[in-house]
Amino acid sequence: MRRVKKIINNPKNVVPELLEGLVEASGGRIRPAGRIQALVKTDIPPDKVGLLIGGGSGHEPVFHGFIGERLADGAACGNIFAAPTPDIILETTRAVHRGRGVLYVYGNYAGDIMNFDIAAEMAAAEGIEVKTVRIWDDVASAPPERKQDRRGIAGDLFVVKIAGGAAATLDTLDEVYRVAAKARDHVRSMGVAVAAGSIPETGEPTFELPDDEIEIGMGLHGEPGVSREKLLPADALVDKMMGKILPDLPFSEGDEVALLINDLGSTTMMELLIVNRRVRQVLRDNGIHVHDTVIGSYCTCQEMAGFSITLLKLDDELRKYYDLPARSPGFVKG
Amino acid sequence: MRRVKKIINNPKNVVPELLEGLVEASGGRIRPAGRIQALVKTDIPPDKVGLLIGGGSGHEPVFHGFIGERLADGAACGNIFAAPTPDIILETTRAVHRGRGVLYVYGNYAGDIMNFDIAAEMAAAEGIEVKTVRIWDDVASAPPERKQDRRGIAGDLFVVKIAGGAAATLDTLDEVYRVAAKARDHVRSMGVAVAAGSIPETGEPTFELPDDEIEIGMGLHGEPGVSREKLLPADALVDKMMGKILPDLPFSEGDEVALLINDLGSTTMMELLIVNRRVRQVLRDNGIHVHDTVIGSYCTCQEMAGFSITLLKLDDELRKYYDLPARSPGFVKG
Repeated sequence: MRRVKKIINNPKNVVPELLEGLVEASGGRIRPAGRIQALVKTDIPPDKVGLLIGGGSGHEPVFHGFIGERLADGAACGNIFAAPTPDIILETTRAVHRGRGVLYVYGNYAGDIMNFDIAAEMAAAEGIEVKTVRIWDDVASAPPERKQDRRGIAGDLFVVKIAGGAAATLDTLDEVYRVAAKARDHVRSMGVAVAAGSIPETGEPTFELPDDEIEIGMGLHGEPGVSREKLLPADALVDKMMGKILPDLPFSEGDEVALLINDLGSTTMMELLIVNRRVRQVLRDNGIHVHDTVIGSYCTCQEMAGFSITLLKLDDELRKYYDLPARSPGFVKG
Repeated sequence: MRRVKKIINNPKNVVPELLEGLVEASGGRIRPAGRIQALVKTDIPPDKVGLLIGGGSGHEPVFHGFIGERLADGAACGNIFAAPTPDIILETTRAVHRGRGVLYVYGNYAGDIMNFDIAAEMAAAEGIEVKTVRIWDDVASAPPERKQDRRGIAGDLFVVKIAGGAAATLDTLDEVYRVAAKARDHVRSMGVAVAAGSIPETGEPTFELPDDEIEIGMGLHGEPGVSREKLLPADALVDKMMGKILPDLPFSEGDEVALLINDLGSTTMMELLIVNRRVRQVLRDNGIHVHDTVIGSYCTCQEMAGFSITLLKLDDELRKYYDLPARSPGFVKG
């Protein structure tokens, strides 16, 4: 029924091989700190607050694709769709630590929380101070009063962007933590799944979705969303999604936002642009100004079809860090 | 059999709507010069040599996604998979002309050649000097002695990058033409198709490929390639492709290249990174140095699965233009 023809070698080796490919793509800017699943920037300045990100592989470029200038100093990389182990996280933590502590930024999933928390305790025992910002931007995954039960999805990019700018600029872990947490608290996303991606090792789809249906609010791995519906026209779909995103923060008249239209894997830029057209109409109608727009594949689930809309509400402080140039294999800001 | 669930509105309106979405994404940096299919940069300096690109829509971000700083000044946009009409090209030409002539850069397809040539004649009749560089980077599409019969594929990005840098820097159309033609003559690509994309208006696949087969060298629209084979492991596939690309220029020991691993639509970054790993091994074995690597979706055919490898051989002059920062909705260089 579905394409499962992946361009890979031995399915057991996809993670080390993709990470080796990432190291090569970085042109010497990223290196393994011991094992290949513990990746760090080659040149981390002394006295810098460390920014460590991470999560399961298979969602490229999230997270490891965001190691770079004014972005993350390192990434702890799990197996496909699986949290990195505490020892990988600890190894990466040691490699990015420059005496001022390390901020962990990752998506709010049970496995990641458990393993990053264990690693943070192990790091503390070695005298490395760690603080944590979990990203929970997906408004479809829990009601506003239970934000901390929400999943992290494409809002990852914006939180890492701001945290990376702050970690490159500010002197203390407390300050970097404050700014990163503020970015997390100012970001909201929602996605829609049109077709499933497949698990690289098995070729099996990650979930089942009837041929004429979509799931609004579905998570990256097929976690249930808000509603399953027949395919809607793009504009009606965007209106529905914006109707959930805007009141959640809320975003309101006079606000300034950064906007991300993210492809979940195989949705074309043509479609993302058509979506963007409507998103901008809705924002204009609500008196919300767009400071910057990012369109492309940033937080994916293999060849899953669908997209998400992310808004980051800016203030003077967040705008300053957002606007800093940044460079990584998965995201560049000029 | 296949996903044809596109996030669109009326299928007849995909082109104007995606172009409107592109204008919105540009944050005021791109505007329609009259009709929406004639897009230009908002701020083109006086006395600048104009760079005009274009081609069929549906391959986003190629070409119109590359209007931007030190990239193209304008793009003439055709309907889905169809060349822009001469009147759209002429309208765009007038809008980018600043008294120093206009360079046309586009893919080497019959419809584009015909329409751009007609537009160039019409422009000449109005006193606008035009020169043309056609991109023919696909080594699978004709033997070396018939380069001018080859198709333009993902090499588009590198030729536009260099031409954009040259047009932002050099004073005469002759000089910009010379540098852009040199970039074209230094670039080689080859692709492999794993599964077809579909035509947005009809949902029909653009070609048929059996479930267990791939086509090496297949063109963007399903034009025949070098061979149809069973799916190979990534490394064996890369070796085959590099075996065609390297001898063609030829690329040889001591050369320095820019490398693009391009997704044709729904191939994951995971796969592209695994491909990159092997490409780098092959280049290292051949004593070829990689100056820069670009990985992502740049030249696509809807949700087609597959990828292409592009090499641009650099010399001091091309490296200078390659390294200039650039910004557009579809490509950013920091």
